[in-house]
Amino acid sequence: MRQIILGFTFSIALCAAASAQEIAPQTIQQAAELREQALKSDLAWKVLESLTTEVGPRLAGSDADKAAVKWGMAKFKELGFDKVWTEPVNIPVWQRIHQSAAVISPYPQSLNITALGGSVSTKQGGITAQIMHFATYEDLVAAPVGSAKGKIVYISNKMERHPSGRGYGKSGPARFLGPAEAARKGAIAIVIRSVGTDNQRSPHTGMTSYAQGVDKIPAAALSNPDADQLDRILLRKQPVTLKLDIKTAEQAQAISYNVIGEITGSERPQEIIAIGGHLDSWDQGTGAVDDGAGIAITVAAAKLIAEQQRPKRTIRVVMFAAEEIGVFGGNQYAVAHKDELNNHIIGAESDGGAGNVLALSSNVGRQSLHAIDAMLALMAPLTVVRSDKVAGGSADFGPMVKAGMPAVGLEQDHLVYFDIHHTPDDTLNKVVPAELAQNVAAWAIFVKIAADWKGRFDR
Amino acid sequence: MRQIILGFTFSIALCAAASAQEIAPQTIQQAAELREQALKSDLAWKVLESLTTEVGPRLAGSDADKAAVKWGMAKFKELGFDKVWTEPVNIPVWQRIHQSAAVISPYPQSLNITALGGSVSTKQGGITAQIMHFATYEDLVAAPVGSAKGKIVYISNKMERHPSGRGYGKSGPARFLGPAEAARKGAIAIVIRSVGTDNQRSPHTGMTSYAQGVDKIPAAALSNPDADQLDRILLRKQPVTLKLDIKTAEQAQAISYNVIGEITGSERPQEIIAIGGHLDSWDQGTGAVDDGAGIAITVAAAKLIAEQQRPKRTIRVVMFAAEEIGVFGGNQYAVAHKDELNNHIIGAESDGGAGNVLALSSNVGRQSLHAIDAMLALMAPLTVVRSDKVAGGSADFGPMVKAGMPAVGLEQDHLVYFDIHHTPDDTLNKVVPAELAQNVAAWAIFVKIAADWKGRFDR
Repeated sequence: MRQIILGFTFSIALCAAASAQEIAPQTIQQAAELREQALKSDLAWKVLESLTTEVGPRLAGSDADKAAVKWGMAKFKELGFDKVWTEPVNIPVWQRIHQSAAVISPYPQSLNITALGGSVSTKQGGITAQIMHFATYEDLVAAPVGSAKGKIVYISNKMERHPSGRGYGKSGPARFLGPAEAARKGAIAIVIRSVGTDNQRSPHTGMTSYAQGVDKIPAAALSNPDADQLDRILLRKQPVTLKLDIKTAEQAQAISYNVIGEITGSERPQEIIAIGGHLDSWDQGTGAVDDGAGIAITVAAAKLIAEQQRPKRTIRVVMFAAEEIGVFGGNQYAVAHKDELNNHIIGAESDGGAGNVLALSSNVGRQSLHAIDAMLALMAPLTVVRSDKVAGGSADFGPMVKAGMPAVGLEQDHLVYFDIHHTPDDTLNKVVPAELAQNVAAWAIFVKIAADWKGRFDR
Repeated sequence: MRQIILGFTFSIALCAAASAQEIAPQTIQQAAELREQALKSDLAWKVLESLTTEVGPRLAGSDADKAAVKWGMAKFKELGFDKVWTEPVNIPVWQRIHQSAAVISPYPQSLNITALGGSVSTKQGGITAQIMHFATYEDLVAAPVGSAKGKIVYISNKMERHPSGRGYGKSGPARFLGPAEAARKGAIAIVIRSVGTDNQRSPHTGMTSYAQGVDKIPAAALSNPDADQLDRILLRKQPVTLKLDIKTAEQAQAISYNVIGEITGSERPQEIIAIGGHLDSWDQGTGAVDDGAGIAITVAAAKLIAEQQRPKRTIRVVMFAAEEIGVFGGNQYAVAHKDELNNHIIGAESDGGAGNVLALSSNVGRQSLHAIDAMLALMAPLTVVRSDKVAGGSADFGPMVKAGMPAVGLEQDHLVYFDIHHTPDDTLNKVVPAELAQNVAAWAIFVKIAADWKGRFDR
């Protein structure tokens, strides 16, 4: 969206086009109060502590996933949400059973890996083959078909660290597409350097996908220190033989649930401000950052608003099912609610960890930009600035945004997010309480303005 | 030792008692030059990179331990040491096979553990029992005999972070003595919070010991985030049931080797300056910090000295066997060399990681304190100060020092050492090259002065 000069006063609302709905001074005042309350509140922390402790890791389709759904229902009810219900989501079930890797020659030693989500197993007892090294996914793409025949492909490039998390886009394809591409080149397996910015022996899992017409080959990620080690061994210019032993299971389809809680609006209850995060996590950590934080932030923002004064529109918090394994909850939500699209006034998902909100993006009609400006003015004390990105609704609200739902994006600091993303180290101690509270403050401002303002954000 | 006012000039040597041997100005000058060369040299880094890459983890008694012995011999020869040999050391062999832990109730989830070194196995398929929680080892000691009957004891106190590493002494007993004490109280197993200062899911192993007359019970350490998680679960005040599945093996005695390399002295070759580190490591990491760094630092210091001018006394570098599992190499060295004790002019082991040397301790006769002063004056640009501790020779030279060998201690910064000590994260990327070089510079000064000075350090 275009850059607009931002005035850091409430007067901006008054300067908006005559046709635009004004934001009531009381709403502005209440939003400012909510910001201060949120900064002092430990509600999000308590919600996050409860989820990560009482449920822990919650891979979609696991017993813990069922426990998470129960937890979500109970938490909404405990916090006094007006309506609480679940909506079924059909999901595939994948399970990690065991995984190991070892250099067989020239320097025998074990390496620390994790199977990528969706990976098939090696044959019983594992496979042993020579490594074929590619610096990048693009190099693998450029290799002739069949050139990796019988080899284990290894892609070694390390993700760049940046507050925007932009390195994920550059290094991610090795994980998303590498296995299919390696199979196309004849490889019998693939290992990649973890898509992550840390220097710990905590390998990063995450979904991969296979392609039709090529073999499904076992796929795993080395932790960054293990990738460093393999790089050093490869520098010795001798053939390197790796053993890979991975066992996973694909089980029958299962049903998980989007868990939904609402604070019913006082004046336009049929109109919905839709927020949320995803309830599932990877199996290695307790999903504190991905995405327990998103659940906690949005639940807490809605609850703080409701405690102050019933919002004029309905606030709907969705705990999405099965995001990690393929956005099943988000896709199902868009299908189930397509007839209510017009009632979804605006939406946003929190799925960027627990780091501070740095910027607010939007994807709204011009007539509503002064409402975005008002949010930004209120968020200024939180050092949130305008983003020039177009908000896409994140993974789970993506389908709704594609269908036409207006959206904002509360973009978070990703400087350290990809240190622990999808690793065993995604645990509660990585969350900074003050940063979590800053998120709640920003979300409360967005939701309060959107809920109580009379205008619409239609694009 | 007493504090002595330190003059930062070379004149201090001249002020020493008339009976003391002077340190030749040329020796002082050469030591100063060595300091500057060491700071610019990457030799220690190259040695460390070679050991950790080409051997990797090297638990005493493993195949990799044998590879490490070969590596040590080859490295000494490659670097031109005058004499290179091995001395056999009889060792027990312990092996980690698998380990897992899970909360069974009230919140089912797996926890990340590591078996302590020497731990026995659980019965096949694991054991399940209620946890009995103690805040500290001292609390466990205070509990009545039999009070933990049938329970899994859990000790939760976290190690203090301090540059001196003093928290290890306070938290260590939970690991060293906890299993025997828990057995005394009737427990069927023990888990402790890792003795470590990090916040990563890398549990800290390390040797434990059992006591005669009490059962050997399985013993493991939780990573710090897992201990945090268990603490939070325990705060819910419900009985907590844990499943523990550990398989280890004790094999027949084996032979490992102290690997020894010497630079022969030009004037008093029978007189030895004895330095070194331990060659074995724990099995979880590549032992970059513990104790690849000690090997690399002492090898590099000896080599740099030899390159400048043959030392007057012999410099002996010992790569000790099997320190981690019970100082077998160090004890055997003292036995094998007891008749040469008087020829061991002074000794020191580097086994404190790769952090900067902060202070120099000593354990020498008063007649030689001016030589220590000279070392300190030369180390002043490295910001090394006098320590008031009595040097004990570290683990491996401990028996020699007890027998009477004079010693110094180059005390390192331990602020972050216990983040990775005995964890899978003890890998090369945790070593800062400039800090490694600072160590070499300090060691080169100590060894050069000790080797070329005519006096003795006898206590």
